[in-house]
Amino acid sequence: MMNTVDNDICTEVMDTIESNSYNIYFENSLGELANFIERGRYSRFFVLTDENTGKHCLPLLQERLGNPDNFDLIEIPAGEESKDIDFCIGVWKMLIDFGADRQSLLINLGGGVISDLGGFAASTFKRGIDFVHVPTTLLSQVDASVGGKTGIDIDSIKNIIGTFTQPKAVFIEADFLKTLPARQILSGTAEMLKHGLICDADYWNRLKQSDLSTPAVELVHRSVEIKNAVVLEDPNEKGIRKSLNFGHTIGHAVETYSLINDKDSLSHGEAIAIGMICEAYLAHKKTGLSAEELSEITEVLMELYPRYDLKKADTDILIEYMQKDKKNQNGKINCTLLDKIGQFNIDNICTPEELIEGINYYATL
Amino acid sequence: MMNTVDNDICTEVMDTIESNSYNIYFENSLGELANFIERGRYSRFFVLTDENTGKHCLPLLQERLGNPDNFDLIEIPAGEESKDIDFCIGVWKMLIDFGADRQSLLINLGGGVISDLGGFAASTFKRGIDFVHVPTTLLSQVDASVGGKTGIDIDSIKNIIGTFTQPKAVFIEADFLKTLPARQILSGTAEMLKHGLICDADYWNRLKQSDLSTPAVELVHRSVEIKNAVVLEDPNEKGIRKSLNFGHTIGHAVETYSLINDKDSLSHGEAIAIGMICEAYLAHKKTGLSAEELSEITEVLMELYPRYDLKKADTDILIEYMQKDKKNQNGKINCTLLDKIGQFNIDNICTPEELIEGINYYATL
Repeated sequence: MMNTVDNDICTEVMDTIESNSYNIYFENSLGELANFIERGRYSRFFVLTDENTGKHCLPLLQERLGNPDNFDLIEIPAGEESKDIDFCIGVWKMLIDFGADRQSLLINLGGGVISDLGGFAASTFKRGIDFVHVPTTLLSQVDASVGGKTGIDIDSIKNIIGTFTQPKAVFIEADFLKTLPARQILSGTAEMLKHGLICDADYWNRLKQSDLSTPAVELVHRSVEIKNAVVLEDPNEKGIRKSLNFGHTIGHAVETYSLINDKDSLSHGEAIAIGMICEAYLAHKKTGLSAEELSEITEVLMELYPRYDLKKADTDILIEYMQKDKKNQNGKINCTLLDKIGQFNIDNICTPEELIEGINYYATL
Repeated sequence: MMNTVDNDICTEVMDTIESNSYNIYFENSLGELANFIERGRYSRFFVLTDENTGKHCLPLLQERLGNPDNFDLIEIPAGEESKDIDFCIGVWKMLIDFGADRQSLLINLGGGVISDLGGFAASTFKRGIDFVHVPTTLLSQVDASVGGKTGIDIDSIKNIIGTFTQPKAVFIEADFLKTLPARQILSGTAEMLKHGLICDADYWNRLKQSDLSTPAVELVHRSVEIKNAVVLEDPNEKGIRKSLNFGHTIGHAVETYSLINDKDSLSHGEAIAIGMICEAYLAHKKTGLSAEELSEITEVLMELYPRYDLKKADTDILIEYMQKDKKNQNGKINCTLLDKIGQFNIDNICTPEELIEGINYYATL
């Protein structure tokens, strides 16, 4: 089993990364998108945005693409709630109304909601039309845009419906990050830190020493490289791809809880940071993560992310969310843990009691 | 381009047919389903039925499978309307409520609505769980259960949303046909006749001479063989699979029209029979189908299927439905026609005027 990702491929850090039959562009990426569009024989182009990216990112896209007349725009409200099936139906209906055919291209301009929802809508519209991602948040650049997972929510159950479908290309444009609020940057940083924790201790150390309020594009590139290497080895999540679930079993449950109960709900990264602390504790109890490394992880994450009052959350409900998580089998809750920093350990069944212990570790910090 | 399907493979007519990494069983098929279930390592089983198959077919399935306690039942109303996205959401929610995990198996017990909807629901639930088809109508045995297309409707636009996903097996049980009303049998016969018309003149002649009110299982087997050979050569409908669309460009539009406007709407086969007559006329005009063969096709189909009053239909609306058909590109309407009986001809762009001429040929018969 692969437990580390080769560092050598990281010399020319801004190289285009080759994924599963598609490219991830870093240099002059919007220019590359213009080239891609010119090369492709698409009949029509559709851009999916949310209110925010329609305002802050679409003008740059239109400027770089030159002639924006070929495009029809589909806009959904900003926020996680837009990943609900109802909004997906709205996107399908707009594609129908615009007369989209099988040779149409959908350009997903936005964060993870846009790429997950847009990818799902495209992968099922007329049994599949092409789509590309132009991720505009740090989180979507290092996470959602790579790996070919699409997904939507039903009744706030995250990604319960989806497909494994690869985009035709991904265009990562550092300029988009400049307009992001600090909290959104930090949401993406959590996934970057996870990449270090699961398979690259050096990268974790570099991240620790970096100014993560404006992460260098080389760091983004390294995260994409790690995620891409993992998903290429295991596209359908039968084995090592599960490494990416570190922090996500408890993190997703906390995220769902917050989405339902908090007025100002946690960002994905904030929830995953909590999940990583809880699961690092489980790793210490179950898979040999040392007390020193548990402390180090806890300290780094607690310094970066605001404290969340987990005591108020009903642990029975959190456990129920975890049981509904699609990663589980036979109702047993499965966690990816760590042997040490930089080395993941998949398929650890955790009992509700253990999980509650992990939650309490965070709640009483 | 393949224009005929090898007849030799048809000697032991009741053999299991091998498709794209799955089997289609004919002999002792429910026994084979029991074996399949025993071999598979599934955590849970779900049976999707409609009101009719729940009543008429489920008891036989339960009897043959022995212990029915492992199963949870999901039932939807009978009829084409149940292919709407709303019912798909209902199926997803029941899978969630029943606690279905990724190791669950969905058994689609029913006609084309059940296999199309069930296939789509399964192929997207938690990014894909296994499913098998137990087709209970003639139409679904010779058509929907083979080929890996799944699909649901939005706003009565047929199969506008779907995936290409193969079932893990198909179990064709002749006993189910015994309970079917004559009209449902005839709905399936239309697809069988189409199989003959597009690539096997001998089979067409055999069908003409057969009592099609109770088609022999050997004929069902031959139709599955033809459809399977076509889809194996072209799983994603880039080329010869389009042969199966003969009769469907106009037929689907008539079907949608009838679904919306008629109290007792046309069956799929009845609509496709109309479509085949209209498109045979277009074939005579555009791809060299002889006047004699056009007459023969018209005569055979008119004798089998009730006359439908197409004069009352607004042709503009029919053309609009065709333009929304997912088979089209750039708004141009694409038809599969015939050079002669037993030889199809794909990718014929037809103008609205030509299509209306084809419709009028039928309307004034």
